[in-house]
Amino acid sequence: MPNVLLTVAYDGTDYCGFQRQRPGQVSIQQRLEEALEHLLGKPVRVTGAGRTDAGVHAEGQAVGFRAGLVIPVDRLPYAINQHLPADIVITGARLVPDGFHPRFSARSKVYRYTLWREPFPSPFHRRYTWHRPEPLNTVDMAAAADCLVGRHDFAAFAASGRSVGDSDTVRTLWRCDIEEAGPRLIFRLEGDGFLYKMVRGIVGTLVEVGRGRWPPQMVAGILASRDRRKAGPSAPPHGLCLEAVRYPEEALSESAEQQAPSQQP
Amino acid sequence: MPNVLLTVAYDGTDYCGFQRQRPGQVSIQQRLEEALEHLLGKPVRVTGAGRTDAGVHAEGQAVGFRAGLVIPVDRLPYAINQHLPADIVITGARLVPDGFHPRFSARSKVYRYTLWREPFPSPFHRRYTWHRPEPLNTVDMAAAADCLVGRHDFAAFAASGRSVGDSDTVRTLWRCDIEEAGPRLIFRLEGDGFLYKMVRGIVGTLVEVGRGRWPPQMVAGILASRDRRKAGPSAPPHGLCLEAVRYPEEALSESAEQQAPSQQP
Repeated sequence: MPNVLLTVAYDGTDYCGFQRQRPGQVSIQQRLEEALEHLLGKPVRVTGAGRTDAGVHAEGQAVGFRAGLVIPVDRLPYAINQHLPADIVITGARLVPDGFHPRFSARSKVYRYTLWREPFPSPFHRRYTWHRPEPLNTVDMAAAADCLVGRHDFAAFAASGRSVGDSDTVRTLWRCDIEEAGPRLIFRLEGDGFLYKMVRGIVGTLVEVGRGRWPPQMVAGILASRDRRKAGPSAPPHGLCLEAVRYPEEALSESAEQQAPSQQP
Repeated sequence: MPNVLLTVAYDGTDYCGFQRQRPGQVSIQQRLEEALEHLLGKPVRVTGAGRTDAGVHAEGQAVGFRAGLVIPVDRLPYAINQHLPADIVITGARLVPDGFHPRFSARSKVYRYTLWREPFPSPFHRRYTWHRPEPLNTVDMAAAADCLVGRHDFAAFAASGRSVGDSDTVRTLWRCDIEEAGPRLIFRLEGDGFLYKMVRGIVGTLVEVGRGRWPPQMVAGILASRDRRKAGPSAPPHGLCLEAVRYPEEALSESAEQQAPSQQP
């Protein structure tokens, strides 16, 4: 059965998150599975690389499924999009090797968090940015962000309720950059994995540093404490976007040879 | 009675346009008048510089009203925004001379129309851009746009129903620029006034040129014909945004001296 990897963009505003949850709540996963069932004529289960929360967006979510295809894989985005609402768009599709898994094969994920710094919120960007009009010291914020790069126990920044010191709260953060772009302040974090609400915890903490509540060097202490109560409040979900999921070339590359024959019956 | 000029940004997606229309349809004007009545405690009539259509957006609509103010004018945006939905935002307020009129005092208006050229629509930009993924010859489009700059009878580009050759279809277009900006193609038109649906008629026609349906020099002939049936179809409203309304400094400048005393009782 062909193993297919989709690239999916969505506006998460009106969804309970990527993953199916309770009945009555609409998830991205549900809409994708409904669209695939319409297209392929049988139930299909999809797996996302990242479980984005309610209100969180994606430009490059990676979603896998296994199913017999009735059309060439490069036409699949156009065909699936016909069955999706306008706030979910498939932007790519490819065949991947049989052993490929959207989450376990991923090398890294890139999340972007955007602040809007103008005095007034923008009616056009309000769904995708967190309005923080006050002055922020971005030099201090960047210094604090640097403390977080590397392999660390990020329990201090994950959603409360996790047990402190649990070994599965160790992650590698490859980058945590802050970029000023006109009225936007953009955080870009790339890591081998992220704990629940970790990006929002980091951004909320860096904003406290920017406001002058804490000196930047204090963030190293917050990290070392592994205590969520020491860090700043979580930034709200609507400023967050899963920008990309990255895979090692080996994980993807066998596909052309393996799968192409089944595409040309 | 103080004469006040507001700068207003709005996402026009959910509105029937700027102007009050039939009962049951919600306009930007209605929401602004409701907000001002809540704030000032009495009915207030507002006047917009441009009557944007249903689905058309504004970054810099100019809106005037006359009323006794209970707070300093520079605090007015914050106060009015408390009474507005999130898709309408006041971004500026100033006192203007008694003879100032938002529409008649305007020197020019700047409209922006945005195409989205990626293969797939974007869930984030779909409300504000027209998705045109096919190749477009922007050199030809710019040449055609140049024919339109100047003082002309623009009847060929206004909404059908207007009588041909009517002297009030003459307008001056100061600029009609086309800019490629990543996945966007941005048209920027500045003129002393625009006929009903004129920007959308021009953009729709230039897109036909870009697609190769017409050579660029044909646009001069379409203009000269003053016949709406000769031009291309209207571009849809959601790609259009009233970017700014410009006033001569004289029209605005007396305000500081004239009105300041009434602000310091």
